[in-house]
Amino acid sequence: MQRIAIDMDDVMAETALHVINKINKLTGSNWTKESAAKSHPEFNTHYLPHREILFQKGFFRNIPVMTDAQEVIKNLQSKYEVFVVSAANEFPLSLTEKLGWLEEHFPFIGWQYTVFCGHKYMIKADYIIDDHPKNLIKFEGKGLLFDAPHNQEVFGYQRVHSWKEIEKILM
Amino acid sequence: MQRIAIDMDDVMAETALHVINKINKLTGSNWTKESAAKSHPEFNTHYLPHREILFQKGFFRNIPVMTDAQEVIKNLQSKYEVFVVSAANEFPLSLTEKLGWLEEHFPFIGWQYTVFCGHKYMIKADYIIDDHPKNLIKFEGKGLLFDAPHNQEVFGYQRVHSWKEIEKILM
Repeated sequence: MQRIAIDMDDVMAETALHVINKINKLTGSNWTKESAAKSHPEFNTHYLPHREILFQKGFFRNIPVMTDAQEVIKNLQSKYEVFVVSAANEFPLSLTEKLGWLEEHFPFIGWQYTVFCGHKYMIKADYIIDDHPKNLIKFEGKGLLFDAPHNQEVFGYQRVHSWKEIEKILM
Repeated sequence: MQRIAIDMDDVMAETALHVINKINKLTGSNWTKESAAKSHPEFNTHYLPHREILFQKGFFRNIPVMTDAQEVIKNLQSKYEVFVVSAANEFPLSLTEKLGWLEEHFPFIGWQYTVFCGHKYMIKADYIIDDHPKNLIKFEGKGLLFDAPHNQEVFGYQRVHSWKEIEKILM
């Protein structure tokens, strides 16, 4: 059975949207995922001074699930061994929250198939689905780049925009 | 550079000893690592009814460091890429504590080289040092079994009893 490593933030979870909503509240702005993608350097001037929100208790526990992620990942499990691989160890408080989030929204995965780490290149898998090119570049398998506001300038990887598109490619 | 995956509990940390000390306090017994190794089924009749101690806040944060682990792992880093790989995701509260413990006792490793997971067989490495045969059996590299009270009946792996012994083998 082939193995897929699936990232959490901005792949299974709408993390960028969650950040944008918080920044809008903090700064009185009205960014959307689309405008943050189009003008990402400008969005960063609003976001980066508030990056501490990522380290706050509760941030990761309440992120909305990415559209169709639950249904498609459940389907993928019939054909692949699915591991969730999140480079979360920069955020010590996020780990318990991420396990709780997965247990709530993806109870069919199970903790045995979760990985919290820093680097990802030492994971053995046939596919990785991730929004960060740093996680694709040294990866031994095939990388799918999940479209996100912060990766619009990244080229050289197969870009996917939705879980339905991933389902068509992998099933 | 070859890669080593190093387990935390009962390899970097004196977890069995920490458990034994807690069981002695709870039950008024006087187990040692040696007696728990010799009579492990009997020790388990004392321990297993109290296994919830593993899930309690603070348990993992205060475990003593294994003798010589700091010095030898620092030496290993000059020749190997060292990852800490702990099957900790069964214990949601342990993750933040384990990161804090590593930052305190092994600040030269860094969160980028830490992995909290369930299964370990999808980790690509040349060596794994672990006390549980379930983590060695499906592993692609060479396994070193770290001697522990609960693995006395395990055969078929190279058994190591101390970090100084590991240093002699790997350096």
